[in-house]
Amino acid sequence: MKIVVLKFGGTSVGTTDKIKNVANIVHDYIKKKYKAIVVSSAMSGVTNKLINKSKEISNNFSNSEYDVLVSSGEQVACSLIAGRLIHKGLKSRSWLAWQIPILTNGPFKYSRINKINKKKILNYLKGGGIPIITGFQGLNEDLRITTLGRGGSDASAIMLAKFFNAEKCVIYTDVQGVYTTDPNKLIKAKKIKTISYEEMLEMASLGAKVMQPISIQDARLNRVDIEVKSSFLKKKGTLITKRSNITSNKIITGITSTQNDAKVTLVGVKDKPGVAASIFKPLSKNLINVDMVVQNISANGNETDLTFTVKSEDLNRTKKIILENKKIKFRNLLFDKNVSKISIIGVGMVTTPGVTFRMFQSLANKKINIQVISTSEIKISVLIDKKNVNKALKILHKEFTLDK
Amino acid sequence: MKIVVLKFGGTSVGTTDKIKNVANIVHDYIKKKYKAIVVSSAMSGVTNKLINKSKEISNNFSNSEYDVLVSSGEQVACSLIAGRLIHKGLKSRSWLAWQIPILTNGPFKYSRINKINKKKILNYLKGGGIPIITGFQGLNEDLRITTLGRGGSDASAIMLAKFFNAEKCVIYTDVQGVYTTDPNKLIKAKKIKTISYEEMLEMASLGAKVMQPISIQDARLNRVDIEVKSSFLKKKGTLITKRSNITSNKIITGITSTQNDAKVTLVGVKDKPGVAASIFKPLSKNLINVDMVVQNISANGNETDLTFTVKSEDLNRTKKIILENKKIKFRNLLFDKNVSKISIIGVGMVTTPGVTFRMFQSLANKKINIQVISTSEIKISVLIDKKNVNKALKILHKEFTLDK
Repeated sequence: MKIVVLKFGGTSVGTTDKIKNVANIVHDYIKKKYKAIVVSSAMSGVTNKLINKSKEISNNFSNSEYDVLVSSGEQVACSLIAGRLIHKGLKSRSWLAWQIPILTNGPFKYSRINKINKKKILNYLKGGGIPIITGFQGLNEDLRITTLGRGGSDASAIMLAKFFNAEKCVIYTDVQGVYTTDPNKLIKAKKIKTISYEEMLEMASLGAKVMQPISIQDARLNRVDIEVKSSFLKKKGTLITKRSNITSNKIITGITSTQNDAKVTLVGVKDKPGVAASIFKPLSKNLINVDMVVQNISANGNETDLTFTVKSEDLNRTKKIILENKKIKFRNLLFDKNVSKISIIGVGMVTTPGVTFRMFQSLANKKINIQVISTSEIKISVLIDKKNVNKALKILHKEFTLDK
Repeated sequence: MKIVVLKFGGTSVGTTDKIKNVANIVHDYIKKKYKAIVVSSAMSGVTNKLINKSKEISNNFSNSEYDVLVSSGEQVACSLIAGRLIHKGLKSRSWLAWQIPILTNGPFKYSRINKINKKKILNYLKGGGIPIITGFQGLNEDLRITTLGRGGSDASAIMLAKFFNAEKCVIYTDVQGVYTTDPNKLIKAKKIKTISYEEMLEMASLGAKVMQPISIQDARLNRVDIEVKSSFLKKKGTLITKRSNITSNKIITGITSTQNDAKVTLVGVKDKPGVAASIFKPLSKNLINVDMVVQNISANGNETDLTFTVKSEDLNRTKKIILENKKIKFRNLLFDKNVSKISIIGVGMVTTPGVTFRMFQSLANKKINIQVISTSEIKISVLIDKKNVNKALKILHKEFTLDK
């Protein structure tokens, strides 16, 4: 069987007209002799409305009941898609996760799929049926409904593609694919044809909102190729696959920028072993993620300046924790929310020397000051003044020939 | 165990504030050492919105997917009620019909409960839990979701009361109980304390909208006592029970009137055997229900006038069927939509002679003409001019001392 998993996001099933369009897309695959497994999210807006109701009921709404509540949204979308396919004369039905079942473990609200019982769906596919499966949810060993957290429907699609050994897993969404950088910020941004899991993971973690990092990691671990494309336009999307499938000669695949970083500087910290740990340990305990870090070499040998970034929403808590910690000695404490992290991402940089230099030189040429730097094997991030973001994106996009 | 089944209708759970109120009602029973089994409908308006979506998808939406679609509404309401009880520090959880399971047979959209697996719920009750069960739905032998048709949540409550041998089955709704007649038409209408299944069945069939006739029939067949009461006011409601539990000395329990009857008269029909059948057979075939019938004795021995009533919405089809049927000979065909059926209902009339006379005399005293009559053991219905409805209700309500 030539199986394809087709996943539709909330905006793709946002109205009954859009659901009719989804049925047409599915029908096209059937005409091409594919066996289609369809996965759907809830109609856009529905999940948020349900969450708001739960907040009205309790400021500490039960996680197990939360899962029962929000999982109803996918049930509605799936029955409507199946209803439309039946209307078109096709054999289809909704399959709620518990009917298959899709088994999960872990806590309510943040469960993970650990097994999918294939038997019923395989029989149904063999009989010419098109199963419409509720994304985002599963069943735990107590036979209670669970949900998979943010991006959960993508996780459902990826695990279905894995268990059914699908030829393709197509994620239909409201964008045309993954872009070299945010098209809203740079008009010259280009759609990427293929991107490796690792690059996509960095892109997603650094601000590209097409998929959740956890879903990309799921795809990477399970070696599931994913095509991200628009459900509204008949255009090729972006293929997310393993590195060895990629033949691009580009050094850099994409550039991202963030909006919600904040810089913290402790001026005149005593420069002795363990001082950085004494600052970062209480932050970590409070689940505040420290991202970029730089420590200046001390001029006089016993004092140093320590700079790091946190998410803007954690800034007030960070301030409080540092000021309340009597063990930390420093002369001054500075904050800056007017910063942005610009990152260039590409597996090509592993084998290409001089990428860092080209990045820094390009920015220097435009008088853009680099405040903090962090790097990984396939990414270089720099912290710059927020007002220079668009200029930086433009110059780097050109420098690494992403315009072409 | 002292078990009580508490069923809440759509208006009783129509907002999150109303759901908080429902949780308080449930809590009151727990304080009185009851084990409460809660059954809920969908929040008011939700089911209709879902049905509208299905109509947008297809003018012939699949019945099996319809059941998946609309059953989501009760799932939402139950998770919110359970969430609120948990918030109040009580042990509670939603139980979806398939989790128990509540087993049904019959077709999708019109299934009937045939078995309830008691084990899990009994264990849960013994452990001090308050189960919140989705009304209106069940599971068929193919493990697909089914729904029970109109008034289905009442059916769920009644069957749960039966299977768990509940002491009480309380139907919480937006009215205070069953009234001697419609309080919107007669200000002197009184709440009935107790009413027999049979009387309630006639009342419901004849226009009292508190419960669906099928649910009352379910209660009667399973000997489940039902209390109908308001979820908004702390007042006693109406108990629906078997005749032998009723000590009232009233001859008549209630009076109903209809708004949607239409009268059809065939003037000058040939008076020979089989003529009535030749008229009613094609109507029956077309699922048109003929209600009251009267045939005048023919004056000259070979012609008669035949009068009957149908629902107003069936009038045009009735006309068409009669006119198209060449076998039916008559001189003239008359229609009248300005009619209403007034019924007096009471088990007391079985043992009390002269009830019919008193009814007819009261109406005659007020110059209200009776057009057609039909009777059963516990009911007398008359067809009158619609303009006289309120006058007739008032005089009959007084005649049979329902004002007291």
